[in-house]
Amino acid sequence: MENKKNIMECETVDLNLQNKTVVIIDQTKLPGRTEMIELKTAQEIWDAIYLLKVRGAPAIGVAAAFGIYILADAIKDETYAGFLAEFQKQKEYLDSARPTAANLSWALKRMEKVVLDNSDKAVSEIKELLKLESIAIKEEDVWVCKTIGEYGLSLVKPGDGILTHCNAGQLATSKYGTATAPIYLGQERGYNFHVYADETRPLLQGARLTSYELHSAGVDVTLICDNMSATVMKNGWVNAVFVGCDRVAANGDTANKIGTSVVATVAKRYNVPVYICAPTSTIDMNTATGADIHIEQRPAEEVTEMWYKERMAPEGVKVFNPAFDVTDHDLIAGIVTEYGIAYAPYTESLAGIFKKKKEAQKK
Amino acid sequence: MENKKNIMECETVDLNLQNKTVVIIDQTKLPGRTEMIELKTAQEIWDAIYLLKVRGAPAIGVAAAFGIYILADAIKDETYAGFLAEFQKQKEYLDSARPTAANLSWALKRMEKVVLDNSDKAVSEIKELLKLESIAIKEEDVWVCKTIGEYGLSLVKPGDGILTHCNAGQLATSKYGTATAPIYLGQERGYNFHVYADETRPLLQGARLTSYELHSAGVDVTLICDNMSATVMKNGWVNAVFVGCDRVAANGDTANKIGTSVVATVAKRYNVPVYICAPTSTIDMNTATGADIHIEQRPAEEVTEMWYKERMAPEGVKVFNPAFDVTDHDLIAGIVTEYGIAYAPYTESLAGIFKKKKEAQKK
Repeated sequence: MENKKNIMECETVDLNLQNKTVVIIDQTKLPGRTEMIELKTAQEIWDAIYLLKVRGAPAIGVAAAFGIYILADAIKDETYAGFLAEFQKQKEYLDSARPTAANLSWALKRMEKVVLDNSDKAVSEIKELLKLESIAIKEEDVWVCKTIGEYGLSLVKPGDGILTHCNAGQLATSKYGTATAPIYLGQERGYNFHVYADETRPLLQGARLTSYELHSAGVDVTLICDNMSATVMKNGWVNAVFVGCDRVAANGDTANKIGTSVVATVAKRYNVPVYICAPTSTIDMNTATGADIHIEQRPAEEVTEMWYKERMAPEGVKVFNPAFDVTDHDLIAGIVTEYGIAYAPYTESLAGIFKKKKEAQKK
Repeated sequence: MENKKNIMECETVDLNLQNKTVVIIDQTKLPGRTEMIELKTAQEIWDAIYLLKVRGAPAIGVAAAFGIYILADAIKDETYAGFLAEFQKQKEYLDSARPTAANLSWALKRMEKVVLDNSDKAVSEIKELLKLESIAIKEEDVWVCKTIGEYGLSLVKPGDGILTHCNAGQLATSKYGTATAPIYLGQERGYNFHVYADETRPLLQGARLTSYELHSAGVDVTLICDNMSATVMKNGWVNAVFVGCDRVAANGDTANKIGTSVVATVAKRYNVPVYICAPTSTIDMNTATGADIHIEQRPAEEVTEMWYKERMAPEGVKVFNPAFDVTDHDLIAGIVTEYGIAYAPYTESLAGIFKKKKEAQKK
């Protein structure tokens, strides 16, 4: 356990090959303490995911990949059948930690495929292939984020003001984040951005995570309440908005953390461009428009009891607590992916992004 | 001390002539408990104002008027000179409780004028006049709120959805509130409004006070986070926005609780009219535009430490925490005063409101 100061020196999720452990930043200790913890047993890995010590879809996927490798590596049985049975038992156990997290089961299935595709190889060889696959999953995540960052950086200039909402940051990915990737790359290159972080009610990811990680990286970040966006934009302090994304529909409507569409509406009034940072994995060409996206409703207590479980609203009051909202494509200046930036009209430009991705994967 | 259930049965500030006390709802106990407390001594009255047991400009003014009457009534000296000296000592003491609260010194000066204008009368007569003046101050406040409520009610119809921000409610005035006045009058008349209360970060007046008082009055109120306004409007649930006001400039720009301009910008996108409820005492024809209104900056801790003083953001992070924002007049559908509703162009219509007020006061 160590208390590092700069998030840029930390890895959100890493593999310690000497200790045979998964190393994560314990996000439940943030923003008070930057504590790195090592996970070795199935129970420790499961708990870390279940208790949100590691969170954010890409980061969960990487943690699960490293986790299942560590557990597979410890399997004593050297017969393929015995190894496979034990592997699948562990895989199902980890998969149960957060049943609705898409990246969790996606990463575990990808690791399982390595075992299934190599039944002709020795268990020791399969273990080596699992290690390489888990590292590849992380490296791909870093590449996606960094490439989004490069494209995003091309949209702003040194000294610009940038507003972001929620945490699509390094803490949600292996490195760089998505919405924060242009900020971190700019920081490495002396761009001196002025960042405004919305606190993001009800769960305060902006205050607890984004303002924490940017501040620790030495970025000039100012925390604001969500309802102050109009003031900072009217003051001329914001040149661009970068936000993360949960799903992009074929017409360019996007589902994002609740409040994003409010930010985008205000930005439109003050002629501030809004850029949605979206790995192609979040673009769903089978969803026609934002109206087809189901919005998760969350418990009232997130609003009425605040973070520390002290009641802040009368008993029995009705609460409406949607986790996301849809930002209509007319409010979006561009959708930044790892295969370039899509501009309106989005149906055409998003199809072009996938074409480019397909070509790149052929090579 | 009693725990009443319905705010409509309570008076925010009242005079108990038998006990010679000021009776208030202790707002520091809300929303957990509706506790009526009686104030008798100068110290008790001063503390109640200083500790925000009574808050909201009009309510503070009424509490101060009742308070100085109670203290004046207890003065033993029956000579005018002795009475005046003691009165002014008490008046200055109460005035020091919140030095920047305009209504506090306004109400105390108005009470002092009664003493100064009646130096020819017996002290017992002056005491009676002070009682009547304090009751008049409250009755005027109730009349202003109720009249704003009647005008506001004319802008909506039974079953409508109404969104409000912060607390311009009964708890901030003697009765009815300003932004809530149309809601309470509608409630008395079976309008069955569906009200959405923004929680209003950072101090959560919407969650703690507005959702409390409307819920206790039996109004169908739903608490939302400030960043959910676009979702409820896009869903078609809101027919009108009513908000309170801190200052109206001559061109119709208004300074309101931080976040109001965000709500108004979003409302414009969804064609929801925004009505500013503004007693004429808040209209300042000497302020040309919203750009001339100074916006108070509040401490960072209101944002970083939440309500219960638990830190929610990293130490040392910068915070921008303006208490108010300016809503440009093009976002405002109407300004509702006790002398009618002003519509654009506001420079002309607001002047008309003052003409009407002058004529009414001549009668």
